[in-house]
Amino acid sequence: LYFRFEDDHPMDFTLHSRLAADCFLIGDFALCRVLLNNDARFPWCILVPRLAHLRDFHDVPAANRATLFDEIEWVSVALQRIGRADKMNVAALGNMVPQLHIHIIARRTNDAAWPAPVWSAGAGTPYDDPQPLIAQLKAHLDLDRSS
Amino acid sequence: LYFRFEDDHPMDFTLHSRLAADCFLIGDFALCRVLLNNDARFPWCILVPRLAHLRDFHDVPAANRATLFDEIEWVSVALQRIGRADKMNVAALGNMVPQLHIHIIARRTNDAAWPAPVWSAGAGTPYDDPQPLIAQLKAHLDLDRSS
Repeated sequence: LYFRFEDDHPMDFTLHSRLAADCFLIGDFALCRVLLNNDARFPWCILVPRLAHLRDFHDVPAANRATLFDEIEWVSVALQRIGRADKMNVAALGNMVPQLHIHIIARRTNDAAWPAPVWSAGAGTPYDDPQPLIAQLKAHLDLDRSS
Repeated sequence: LYFRFEDDHPMDFTLHSRLAADCFLIGDFALCRVLLNNDARFPWCILVPRLAHLRDFHDVPAANRATLFDEIEWVSVALQRIGRADKMNVAALGNMVPQLHIHIIARRTNDAAWPAPVWSAGAGTPYDDPQPLIAQLKAHLDLDRSS
Protein backbone atom coordinates (compact mmCIF):
# COMPACT_ATOMS: atom_id res chain seq x y z
CA LEU A 1 0.00 0.00 0.00
CA TYR A 2 1.45 3.32 -1.05
CA PHE A 3 0.80 6.12 1.37
CA ARG A 4 0.92 9.86 0.81
CA PHE A 5 0.56 12.72 3.25
CA GLU A 6 -1.80 15.25 1.73
CA ASP A 7 -1.45 17.89 4.43
CA ASP A 8 1.32 19.45 6.42
CA HIS A 9 3.26 16.80 8.23
CA PRO A 10 6.52 16.74 10.18
CA MET A 11 8.09 14.92 7.24
CA ASP A 12 7.80 18.15 5.23
CA PHE A 13 9.75 20.05 7.86
CA THR A 14 13.23 21.40 7.20
CA LEU A 15 14.93 23.63 9.76
CA HIS A 16 15.77 27.06 8.33
CA SER A 17 19.47 27.29 7.51
CA ARG A 18 20.02 30.35 9.69
CA LEU A 19 18.55 28.64 12.76
CA ALA A 20 20.67 25.57 12.01
CA ALA A 21 23.78 27.75 11.77
CA ASP A 22 23.13 29.86 14.89
CA CYS A 23 21.96 27.13 17.28
CA PHE A 24 22.80 23.76 18.79
CA LEU A 25 20.30 20.91 18.54
CA ILE A 26 18.90 19.71 21.86
CA GLY A 27 16.26 17.30 20.54
CA ASP A 28 12.65 16.97 19.43
CA PHE A 29 9.40 17.11 21.36
CA ALA A 30 6.20 15.74 19.83
CA LEU A 31 5.69 19.07 18.03
CA CYS A 32 8.80 21.24 18.27
CA ARG A 33 12.49 20.98 17.62
CA VAL A 34 14.38 22.35 20.63
CA LEU A 35 17.47 24.44 19.94
CA LEU A 36 19.99 26.25 22.15
CA ASN A 37 20.87 29.67 20.77
CA ASN A 38 24.65 30.13 20.58
CA ASP A 39 24.81 33.16 22.88
CA ALA A 40 26.49 32.49 26.21
CA ARG A 41 25.17 35.75 27.71
CA PHE A 42 21.67 34.29 28.21
CA PRO A 43 20.31 30.74 28.65
CA TRP A 44 18.17 30.91 25.50
CA CYS A 45 16.27 28.15 23.77
CA ILE A 46 14.34 28.32 20.52
CA LEU A 47 11.34 26.10 19.79
CA VAL A 48 10.52 25.41 16.15
CA PRO A 49 7.22 23.62 15.41
CA ARG A 50 8.06 20.82 12.98
CA LEU A 51 5.29 21.73 10.56
CA ALA A 52 5.79 23.25 7.14
CA HIS A 53 4.58 26.72 6.18
CA LEU A 54 4.18 28.31 9.62
CA ARG A 55 5.25 31.93 9.86
CA ASP A 56 3.23 33.83 12.46
CA PHE A 57 2.36 32.60 15.95
CA HIS A 58 -1.34 32.50 15.06
CA ASP A 59 -0.58 30.23 12.09
CA VAL A 60 -0.21 27.31 14.53
CA PRO A 61 -3.21 25.05 13.82
CA ALA A 62 -5.80 24.77 16.61
CA ALA A 63 -5.01 21.06 16.95
CA ASN A 64 -1.37 21.82 17.82
CA ARG A 65 -1.80 24.77 20.18
CA ALA A 66 -2.15 22.90 23.48
CA THR A 67 0.97 20.89 22.65
CA LEU A 68 2.91 24.02 21.75
CA PHE A 69 1.89 25.65 25.04
CA ASP A 70 2.98 22.53 26.96
CA GLU A 71 6.35 22.51 25.22
CA ILE A 72 6.85 26.24 25.89
CA GLU A 73 6.09 25.52 29.56
CA TRP A 74 8.53 22.60 29.79
CA VAL A 75 11.39 24.58 28.27
CA SER A 76 10.55 27.66 30.35
CA VAL A 77 10.53 25.72 33.61
CA ALA A 78 13.78 23.93 32.73
CA LEU A 79 15.58 27.13 31.71
CA GLN A 80 14.23 28.98 34.75
CA ARG A 81 15.69 26.33 37.06
CA ILE A 82 18.97 25.88 35.20
CA GLY A 83 19.49 29.63 34.77
CA ARG A 84 18.10 30.59 38.21
CA ALA A 85 16.07 33.12 36.25
CA ASP A 86 14.21 36.07 37.70
CA LYS A 87 11.94 36.30 34.64
CA MET A 88 11.26 34.30 31.52
CA ASN A 89 10.88 36.04 28.15
CA VAL A 90 8.85 34.33 25.41
CA ALA A 91 8.67 35.80 21.91
CA ALA A 92 7.79 34.94 18.33
CA LEU A 93 9.27 37.72 16.19
CA GLY A 94 10.60 36.28 12.94
CA ASN A 95 11.59 39.51 11.22
CA MET A 96 14.85 37.95 10.00
CA VAL A 97 14.01 34.24 9.74
CA PRO A 98 10.56 33.60 8.22
CA GLN A 99 10.13 30.10 9.71
CA LEU A 100 8.04 30.32 12.91
CA HIS A 101 10.30 29.99 15.94
CA ILE A 102 9.66 30.87 19.57
CA HIS A 103 12.40 32.38 21.71
CA ILE A 104 12.44 31.30 25.38
CA ILE A 105 15.03 33.23 27.34
CA ALA A 106 16.02 33.05 31.01
CA ARG A 107 16.58 36.57 32.29
CA ARG A 108 18.36 37.69 35.44
CA THR A 109 18.27 41.16 36.90
CA ASN A 110 22.07 41.33 36.55
CA ASP A 111 22.32 40.05 32.97
CA ALA A 112 23.88 41.88 30.03
CA ALA A 113 20.63 43.47 28.81
CA TRP A 114 18.34 43.78 31.87
CA PRO A 115 15.72 45.23 31.92
CA ALA A 116 15.80 45.70 28.15
CA PRO A 117 14.97 42.84 25.78
CA VAL A 118 18.01 40.75 24.84
CA TRP A 119 17.94 42.07 21.28
CA SER A 120 18.91 45.52 22.57
CA ALA A 121 22.26 44.28 23.89
CA GLY A 122 24.26 43.92 20.70
CA ALA A 123 25.86 40.86 19.18
CA GLY A 124 25.90 37.51 20.90
CA THR A 125 28.84 35.83 22.61
CA PRO A 126 29.39 32.28 21.30
CA TYR A 127 29.80 29.52 23.88
CA ASP A 128 33.32 28.29 24.58
CA ASP A 129 31.75 24.91 25.35
CA PRO A 130 27.95 24.51 25.17
CA GLN A 131 28.06 20.83 26.19
CA PRO A 132 27.42 21.30 29.95
CA LEU A 133 24.27 23.34 29.28
CA ILE A 134 23.16 21.00 26.51
CA ALA A 135 23.53 18.08 28.93
CA GLN A 136 21.57 19.91 31.64
CA LEU A 137 18.76 20.69 29.21
CA LYS A 138 18.59 17.10 28.00
CA ALA A 139 18.44 15.92 31.62
CA HIS A 140 15.55 18.29 32.41
CA LEU A 141 13.49 17.69 29.26
CA ASP A 142 11.67 14.57 28.14
CA LEU A 143 12.84 14.60 24.53
CA ASP A 144 12.81 12.23 21.57
CA ARG A 145 10.41 9.78 23.14
CA SER A 146 9.13 8.70 19.76
CA SER A 147 12.48 8.26 18.05
CA LEU B 1 -27.06 33.02 49.78
CA TYR B 2 -23.67 34.60 50.26
CA PHE B 3 -21.11 33.60 47.66
CA ARG B 4 -17.33 33.83 47.75
CA PHE B 5 -14.73 33.12 45.09
CA GLU B 6 -12.00 31.00 46.62
CA ASP B 7 -9.70 30.89 43.61
CA ASP B 8 -8.38 33.31 41.03
CA HIS B 9 -11.21 35.01 39.29
CA PRO B 10 -11.51 38.01 36.99
CA MET B 11 -12.97 39.95 39.92
CA ASP B 12 -9.52 39.85 41.54
CA PHE B 13 -7.96 41.45 38.47
CA THR B 14 -6.60 44.98 38.54
CA LEU B 15 -4.71 46.35 35.56
CA HIS B 16 -1.13 47.33 36.45
CA SER B 17 -0.84 51.11 36.80
CA ARG B 18 1.93 51.35 34.22
CA LEU B 19 -0.13 49.55 31.57
CA ALA B 20 -3.09 51.76 32.43
CA ALA B 21 -0.92 54.87 32.03
CA ASP B 22 0.81 53.83 28.78
CA CYS B 23 -2.19 52.40 26.89
CA PHE B 24 -5.72 53.08 25.69
CA LEU B 25 -8.50 50.64 26.58
CA ILE B 26 -10.07 48.87 23.61
CA GLY B 27 -12.28 46.42 25.50
CA ASP B 28 -12.46 42.97 27.07
CA PHE B 29 -12.53 39.51 25.55
CA ALA B 30 -13.67 36.53 27.62
CA LEU B 31 -10.15 36.23 29.04
CA CYS B 32 -8.05 39.26 28.18
CA ARG B 33 -8.27 43.01 28.41
CA VAL B 34 -7.27 44.52 25.05
CA LEU B 35 -5.13 47.65 25.11
CA LEU B 36 -3.62 49.87 22.42
CA ASN B 37 -0.06 50.88 23.27
CA ASN B 38 0.40 54.65 22.94
CA ASP B 39 3.12 54.50 20.30
CA ALA B 40 2.05 55.80 16.91
CA ARG B 41 5.12 54.29 15.20
CA PHE B 42 3.64 50.76 15.29
CA PRO B 43 0.06 49.38 15.44
CA TRP B 44 0.63 47.65 18.78
CA CYS B 45 -1.90 45.97 21.05
CA ILE B 46 -1.32 44.45 24.46
CA LEU B 47 -3.42 41.57 25.79
CA VAL B 48 -3.67 41.20 29.57
CA PRO B 49 -5.34 38.03 30.89
CA ARG B 50 -7.84 39.16 33.54
CA LEU B 51 -6.62 36.70 36.14
CA ALA B 52 -4.70 37.59 39.26
CA HIS B 53 -1.13 36.48 39.95
CA LEU B 54 0.04 35.65 36.41
CA ARG B 55 3.58 36.67 35.61
CA ASP B 56 5.19 34.34 33.06
CA PHE B 57 3.54 33.08 29.88
CA HIS B 58 3.58 29.51 31.20
CA ASP B 59 1.68 30.65 34.32
CA VAL B 60 -1.51 30.72 32.22
CA PRO B 61 -3.65 27.84 33.55
CA ALA B 62 -4.23 24.96 31.14
CA ALA B 63 -7.97 25.71 31.15
CA ASN B 64 -7.35 29.22 29.76
CA ARG B 65 -4.69 28.49 27.15
CA ALA B 66 -6.93 27.77 24.16
CA THR B 67 -8.87 30.97 24.85
CA LEU B 68 -5.67 32.98 25.12
CA PHE B 69 -4.43 31.57 21.81
CA ASP B 70 -7.76 32.45 20.16
CA GLU B 71 -7.61 36.00 21.47
CA ILE B 72 -3.99 36.39 20.30
CA GLU B 73 -5.13 35.20 16.87
CA TRP B 74 -8.09 37.61 16.69
CA VAL B 75 -5.95 40.62 17.62
CA SER B 76 -3.13 39.51 15.30
CA VAL B 77 -5.45 39.12 12.32
CA ALA B 78 -7.14 42.46 13.02
CA LEU B 79 -3.85 44.34 13.43
CA GLN B 80 -2.37 42.64 10.37
CA ARG B 81 -5.28 43.85 8.24
CA ILE B 82 -5.53 47.32 9.75
CA GLY B 83 -1.77 47.85 9.65
CA ARG B 84 -1.21 46.07 6.32
CA ALA B 85 1.55 44.26 8.18
CA ASP B 86 4.33 42.21 6.62
CA LYS B 87 4.94 40.32 9.86
CA MET B 88 3.31 40.04 13.26
CA ASN B 89 5.45 40.05 16.42
CA VAL B 90 4.10 38.37 19.57
CA ALA B 91 5.98 38.60 22.86
CA ALA B 92 5.55 38.15 26.61
CA LEU B 93 8.55 39.86 28.20
CA GLY B 94 7.51 41.60 31.43
CA ASN B 95 10.91 42.75 32.63
CA MET B 96 9.49 46.14 33.62
CA VAL B 97 5.84 45.36 34.42
CA PRO B 98 5.41 42.13 36.38
CA GLN B 99 1.76 41.55 35.39
CA LEU B 100 1.59 39.11 32.47
CA HIS B 101 0.90 40.99 29.24
CA ILE B 102 1.34 39.91 25.65
CA HIS B 103 2.56 42.36 23.03
CA ILE B 104 1.06 41.96 19.54
CA ILE B 105 2.74 44.27 17.07
CA ALA B 106 2.11 44.83 13.36
CA ARG B 107 5.45 45.20 11.62
CA ARG B 108 6.16 46.59 8.17
CA THR B 109 9.45 46.31 6.33
CA ASN B 110 9.65 50.11 6.20
CA ASP B 111 8.78 50.81 9.85
CA ALA B 112 10.94 52.70 12.35
CA ALA B 113 12.69 49.60 13.73
CA TRP B 114 12.63 46.96 10.96
CA PRO B 115 14.08 44.33 11.04
CA ALA B 116 15.01 44.86 14.69
CA PRO B 117 12.45 44.34 17.47
CA VAL B 118 10.48 47.49 18.30
CA TRP B 119 12.22 47.82 21.67
CA SER B 120 15.48 48.60 19.85
CA ALA B 121 14.06 51.79 18.31
CA GLY B 122 14.08 54.15 21.26
CA ALA B 123 11.20 55.95 22.94
CA GLY B 124 7.66 55.79 21.63
CA THR B 125 5.77 58.52 19.79
CA PRO B 126 2.41 59.26 21.44
CA TYR B 127 -0.64 59.39 19.17
CA ASP B 128 -1.97 62.79 18.20
CA ASP B 129 -5.39 61.16 18.03
CA PRO B 130 -5.77 57.44 18.72
CA GLN B 131 -9.54 57.43 18.15
CA PRO B 132 -9.52 56.36 14.46
CA LEU B 133 -7.38 53.30 15.24
CA ILE B 134 -9.37 52.52 18.39
CA ALA B 135 -12.57 52.64 16.30
CA GLN B 136 -11.05 50.35 13.65
CA LEU B 137 -9.97 47.85 16.29
CA LYS B 138 -13.39 47.85 17.93
CA ALA B 139 -14.99 47.27 14.52
CA HIS B 140 -12.71 44.29 13.79
CA LEU B 141 -12.90 42.62 17.21
CA ASP B 142 -15.86 40.97 18.89
CA LEU B 143 -15.43 42.54 22.31
CA ASP B 144 -17.40 42.90 25.52
CA ARG B 145 -20.00 40.32 24.58
CA SER B 146 -20.66 39.47 28.23
CA SER B 147 -20.83 43.01 29.53
